[in-house]
Parts: sequence; C-alpha cells; structure tokens
Amino acid sequence: MSGRVVIIGAGPGAGDLITVRGARWLAKADAVLVDALTDPSLRELAPHARWIDVGKRGYRDSTGQNRINALLVELAGQVGVVVRLKGGDPSVFGRLEEELQALAAAGIDCEVVPGITAAVAAAASTRRPLTRRGTGRSVSFTTAVTAADASIPAPAAHSDTEVFYMAGKQLAALSERLLAAGWPAGTPTSVVSRAGWPDQLHSDHTVSTLPSASAIHEGRPTIVTVGAGAAPLPLHAFSSAP
Amino acid sequence: MSGRVVIIGAGPGAGDLITVRGARWLAKADAVLVDALTDPSLRELAPHARWIDVGKRGYRDSTGQNRINALLVELAGQVGVVVRLKGGDPSVFGRLEEELQALAAAGIDCEVVPGITAAVAAAASTRRPLTRRGTGRSVSFTTAVTAADASIPAPAAHSDTEVFYMAGKQLAALSERLLAAGWPAGTPTSVVSRAGWPDQLHSDHTVSTLPSASAIHEGRPTIVTVGAGAAPLPLHAFSSAP
Repeated sequence: MSGRVVIIGAGPGAGDLITVRGARWLAKADAVLVDALTDPSLRELAPHARWIDVGKRGYRDSTGQNRINALLVELAGQVGVVVRLKGGDPSVFGRLEEELQALAAAGIDCEVVPGITAAVAAAASTRRPLTRRGTGRSVSFTTAVTAADASIPAPAAHSDTEVFYMAGKQLAALSERLLAAGWPAGTPTSVVSRAGWPDQLHSDHTVSTLPSASAIHEGRPTIVTVGAGAAPLPLHAFSSAP
Repeated sequence: MSGRVVIIGAGPGAGDLITVRGARWLAKADAVLVDALTDPSLRELAPHARWIDVGKRGYRDSTGQNRINALLVELAGQVGVVVRLKGGDPSVFGRLEEELQALAAAGIDCEVVPGITAAVAAAASTRRPLTRRGTGRSVSFTTAVTAADASIPAPAAHSDTEVFYMAGKQLAALSERLLAAGWPAGTPTSVVSRAGWPDQLHSDHTVSTLPSASAIHEGRPTIVTVGAGAAPLPLHAFSSAP
C-alpha cells in the first residue's frame, strides 16, 4: 500500500497565487517537499505536515533531483498524502518529467495541479498582455541558459513575443545574441525580477540597452520579455488623468 | 469617485483552478462581468454580487467587446468592487489589452490577477510536461485561427513544442499546414478539449492523423500540442505495474 502523491504548482511568488485546488490538497498533506522559491506563508496551509526543504544546496544539481525523486517514493510508502510543492507551474521548466518517471517506476499514482507560471504573473502585474490583437499573435517561453547553446531564432521566424526564464546572469549575452539574430536594437524589452512577490521589480529597456538591467535586478530570479508583449500599452493618448 | 476594477483569470475549467487571490477578490465583489467559459460554481464565491453574463451572443464580436468595456467603466462608477472574470489567463489570448485601455481612458485604476492558462492545465492533467530536459527547451502558444493567415514556422526555426489554442475547427487545416512547414508526419500531437473540466477529453495523434481528432472533440473548446511536449513520457520501461 502506498500514499497519494500530489505535485502542485505554487505559483511564482506570493502564497495567494496558488490555486484553490492546490491549497485544499496542502491542507490534507502529511508531508510536503518544498522548493526554495515558494512563499513560506504556504506553511500555514499545512501546519501539521512534515515540511522538507529540498531547495537547499545539495538538492539543486542532478544528484539532488535523484534524491528528491527517492524521497518522494519513500514518503509515499510511509504517509497518506505527500505534496510536492514546486515554484511556478510544474509543466514549465519545472523538471516535472523526472519526478513523474520516478513515481511511475515505483508504481505510485500521482496527480498534478497546475500553477501560475512566472511569465503570466509578470504580465499581469506589469499590465503587459503577452498576446495582443494584430501585433502579438504568439508567445514563446524558453530559458536564457538553454538559449546559450542554441541559436536564437530571427524575429520573423519565431513568436511575436519571447519570454526568457532564468535570465538574471545572462542579460548581456542575451542582448548580444538577440541582436545577432536580427532583432532590432529598439525592440521593447521588459525585465521583471521576483515576479509575483511583493518586492517584485520591473524595468523597461530595449534589446540593446538590456545589459543595463543588471544593476537593478542583480542576484534575483529574473525573466526577460522581448517583443510585442513587452511594450507598455499606448494608454496616454486615451487617458483622462491629468 | 469610482470603484475598483479587478480583472481575474478564472483558469480554464473547474472552479477550484482559480487562484486563492482571485477567490478572495470575488468574495468582495459587488458586480461580476463573467465569460461563458467559466465554471458556474464560481458564483458561490460571490452570491450577493450582481452577475452579468457577457459571454452571450452579441458580446462575442468586436461590438461586444466595446459593450463590455463600456459596462466595466459604467459599473466602476456605481459600485465598490467590480470583478471582470475571464476564462484562462487574461494575458494569454484574453483580450486584456482592450479592457485595460478602456479603463485607462476613463481614468479608472485596476488590478490584474493571473490565471491558469489552458495549455498548462492540459499538460498537468495529461502528465505531458510542456518543457523537457534536452528535448523540450521551449514552448510556444499561438492560435490556430491566427495561424491560418500566418505561415507556420518550420520545426528547426521554432519552439520544440507548439500549443495551438482555439483549434477545434482547424484540425485538418492545421495538420496540412504543419506538414507543409516541414514538421515530420509522425510528430507527437496531443489533443485536449474542455481542458481542466471534469469532462475533459484527451486523445493522441500525430501531425498526419490529427484530422481524425475531430470526431472525438467536435464542438468543444480544443487545444492542440505538437512536438516534444506532446509525447507520453517513456514510463513503461520503468513501470513496476503488471
């Protein structure tokens, strides 16, 4: 007999960005394996559960992922409801695949509860819709780290809006490579760090001035949005404000 | 003096996919403008609010969007908290831009609460992570309708995974155009209708057999995922199940 495993996307920031379904599962949890980037306030939803922080150094490399997988399987054999609480959405740069495979290999059933991914949280709080009629007909999510060993597509060949996750240490390199791929120097580029948290920071740049964002966002989890979805809405012409 | 407007993503299906923040705002609402594709059970979160269904015929064209915009502004002048409840996430194919502009033109402040978008709900419930280490390094969202008047990018030029929203009536055309763009006939293609609802349906195809999905999903809101993120996880080799 084994317990139930529920893999939950906690959203990218403040604890109230979790779904109602995620919050309800947390309330039933006997054990919770939690990432570093989730809101500590979520612990109040499962005060009697055993909380295990797997976001610490030692869990962050591929060995660490194996340890997380093993821990999930082990706990499922010991308690009723095991929650795996991940930042953002599990299906988007969440290494969900590896945990699903480890559970399946052990014959343990699980459920996945989706979460708010950083790109849409940043879009909501900065009021920059990722898609826009006419100009923003598609949006693509990739990682700045991945992009380092893959060519960045030319704008005409790709989505109207590109969102680069995990871009904090890559701003100068990203700028260079976007320019080399043919993105115009003046393309709107929006940088958000700690998306969805109360201390979120946002700054506006262009593809060529992107490197200057480092001074603002240094050391913080950062996403970069480039193209149609990065532009501020043209509100001023309509505004009745003074 | 005017009221506060909160634009909330209800998620793509069952009412418990709304965020806790969204649910809390709903509980404070005096009036709610709601889309057709949101769960009627959400009304229980704001039983005393005035609910206005703007998903009906007459609101679905561009004239309708203007009427919704006007209604938002009008209600903000009458009551304390006006909620605009949209299916999915407002920033992804949600026409958020137009409502933000109408509110700004009227000098009305607003807040946007992100929601679960259909692609990640479908990925969670079918256990098909949209990104995967090595093979699925990027994911792109577009609409099948848009794609009809834009060329579909060749696989090498684009994301490893493509998700097409609003694809229900476009399955045969989409198949043809993916093939014409150079996607191999056997590329994994996952079709989900009513993503996130209890009556969600899912079927597996390839790019060339995609048209046969019509018989299963006809008349239902449908998204199509093509590429790395559409493939079932290779679990069988690991499974301890009989």
